[in-house]
Amino acid sequence: MATVKLLTDAEIEVIPAAKAVFDDIRATRKSDFINNFWRGLANDPPLLKRTWESLKAVMAVEGVLDPLTREMIYIAVSTANGCSYCVHSHTAAAKARGMTEAQHAELLAVIGLAGQTNHLVTAMQIPVDEAFL
Amino acid sequence: MATVKLLTDAEIEVIPAAKAVFDDIRATRKSDFINNFWRGLANDPPLLKRTWESLKAVMAVEGVLDPLTREMIYIAVSTANGCSYCVHSHTAAAKARGMTEAQHAELLAVIGLAGQTNHLVTAMQIPVDEAFL
Amino acid sequence: MATVKLLTDAEIEVIPAAKAVFDDIRATRKSDFINNFWRGLANDPPLLKRTWESLKAVMAVEGVLDPLTREMIYIAVSTANGCSYCVHSHTAAAKARGMTEAQHAELLAVIGLAGQTNHLVTAMQIPVDEAFL
Amino acid sequence: MATVKLLTDAEIEVIPAAKAVFDDIRATRKSDFINNFWRGLANDPPLLKRTWESLKAVMAVEGVLDPLTREMIYIAVSTANGCSYCVHSHTAAAKARGMTEAQHAELLAVIGLAGQTNHLVTAMQIPVDEAFL
Amino acid sequence: MATVKLLTDAEIEVIPAAKAVFDDIRATRKSDFINNFWRGLANDPPLLKRTWESLKAVMAVEGVLDPLTREMIYIAVSTANGCSYCVHSHTAAAKARGMTEAQHAELLAVIGLAGQTNHLVTAMQIPVDEAFL
Amino acid sequence: MATVKLLTDAEIEVIPAAKAVFDDIRATRKSDFINNFWRGLANDPPLLKRTWESLKAVMAVEGVLDPLTREMIYIAVSTANGCSYCVHSHTAAAKARGMTEAQHAELLAVIGLAGQTNHLVTAMQIPVDEAFL
Repeated sequence: MATVKLLTDAEIEVIPAAKAVFDDIRATRKSDFINNFWRGLANDPPLLKRTWESLKAVMAVEGVLDPLTREMIYIAVSTANGCSYCVHSHTAAAKARGMTEAQHAELLAVIGLAGQTNHLVTAMQIPVDEAFL
Repeated sequence: MATVKLLTDAEIEVIPAAKAVFDDIRATRKSDFINNFWRGLANDPPLLKRTWESLKAVMAVEGVLDPLTREMIYIAVSTANGCSYCVHSHTAAAKARGMTEAQHAELLAVIGLAGQTNHLVTAMQIPVDEAFL
Repeated sequence: MATVKLLTDAEIEVIPAAKAVFDDIRATRKSDFINNFWRGLANDPPLLKRTWESLKAVMAVEGVLDPLTREMIYIAVSTANGCSYCVHSHTAAAKARGMTEAQHAELLAVIGLAGQTNHLVTAMQIPVDEAFL
Repeated sequence: MATVKLLTDAEIEVIPAAKAVFDDIRATRKSDFINNFWRGLANDPPLLKRTWESLKAVMAVEGVLDPLTREMIYIAVSTANGCSYCVHSHTAAAKARGMTEAQHAELLAVIGLAGQTNHLVTAMQIPVDEAFL
Repeated sequence: MATVKLLTDAEIEVIPAAKAVFDDIRATRKSDFINNFWRGLANDPPLLKRTWESLKAVMAVEGVLDPLTREMIYIAVSTANGCSYCVHSHTAAAKARGMTEAQHAELLAVIGLAGQTNHLVTAMQIPVDEAFL
Repeated sequence: MATVKLLTDAEIEVIPAAKAVFDDIRATRKSDFINNFWRGLANDPPLLKRTWESLKAVMAVEGVLDPLTREMIYIAVSTANGCSYCVHSHTAAAKARGMTEAQHAELLAVIGLAGQTNHLVTAMQIPVDEAFL
């Protein structure tokens, strides 16, 4: 269970500032479905709005990285942070953007390897090579 | 300073099992430069060999993700794990593979956003939506 | 399921060293309820005692920070560490100490922002300004 | 050394979008000093602007938590995330906002305790009590 | 639910590369039981094989650390990384290798203490003593 | 530089509560050397005392795990938490307690492997097997 209330559509309806964001999420994603993350944030409409505006600016617009690559980077961070919800939601998003099983497998291999070498480096306290500076 | 000795080329020369790996690193990377990480691992030749074989299999071969994407995923994990050396070395690797300033900026934006929403989700303990399962 | 047994009141009854701590928890909190964390620690009465004594010294006495502020700091650390149980239990404690929805929302906003800038700083490997030293 | 260029005032001068943010940082903080974090972000003016706008909205306005409490929460998250720069910069900010040595000491005590119980809970995999849900 | 399919024995049967690893896991462990981790990895037979070969080389062979010590170190890392599945599986493995309740309790005490002092050190940004370098 | 003052022996001399702990550290360790961690904690004598008493109870007494094993577990946690100072100080402590290069290498191999499988498990969101519960 969440530590905040997950607002229903009926509850959102009477909070204009939240309603406006929900409308924009639905319009941008061309889908009526709104996931729990936004329903939790809706308790604080300004935070909801800032977070959605950032997400839209970073993930939902044309950029120099393709949308699937951005979702895979998101999964990588979420994994290292141990955020179960985020791994689930962004893996779903990556699949929706066409991530194949082979790409998913390769993503997992890179994440696992990075996890390993990150730990080895830290345990050995390797100093940064001059060449990298 | 490292918690293990960083072996010099002269020291590697007399450890055949480590020497073989260093030779392969140089041949694979077409460069004489070997960074400190491998010099630390060389204290344990089997660990050195296993780690290099994994890195080669994951990062240095043809795959379904292009090499630059893999390096950016590596940076993402290393950032969330707070591994300074790893962020430096893989950012250098990504630049060597052609990462532009615009791509780097977009990578940073995604990493930062993921860091934010990971924390928000965990603080709110958002339950995973049925739709993601 | 826990990796240790969660001791029931009946089981605690026959372990005097654990019983004494449980009695003190109940007296200090003026409540009969003892949460699972202490029931797990009770398998090691000295660890139970040390942990409770520390918690009492840090969280349950008069200090220069008010009790609610301390609970919010606890939530912040628990979130960044991804400890679901801890986020739940300390959010409940903060609410019991009067945290309003507006305060909770502001706490979430700070936690999320810190998560974002922590990641940006690490990905950019920003050197500490002289002015901060 | 950073993985991005830390832009000087002269370099900022010729990037209007970054210049506008730097001007606002200076005006808001009533100080000419701009720390390295912003100089790194300035490579991506939209990211600089979004991050500053968020920081201003969360940290620099009147709210229900006093500014010092917000800085202490920031330190708590930054510590758990192992962000050295962030611990330094927000400890400096907290001191600038009047954090006394006694308050700092109490903050440290709470952070340390939370670190300990977070680990104990995770190692024991304590299930969340019904009472917290 | 997992983000990948957990392959059943019937599905493994028709993937020779995965089948060979599963056979070796069963032979090495002298048990028919194969846990979910391997069923997830089996979607990528080369990753499955590399991971199992590493695990076998590190955990299942004669070494200078006894097998139980290695499992306790594994639990320690998994706890700090907040990996619930890993804490469960390696605590089960440690118990199977003879970990007593007293050893488990002492392991928990060390993990908790390290969690605490790690946080205190980071919050204070203690510089490394010359004596440790 | 630390965010707190690192108290010198002369400064400790005039704080009886801190002086008593420093005396006990020296007596317990049979060494005059006191590392920076304690000099930082000394700003808050009760926290100094509680932390030292815990450390003594967990690390410096006869237990069911030998002292070297406890230090290796400490290194494992400190690595996963990315605490550079802690990795340095506890690796030094482990070496002082007789950790051989071969044992250190094996410790590193376990830590690295755990880092890898922790990440793989989280990215795949593997559900805990019934057999582990």
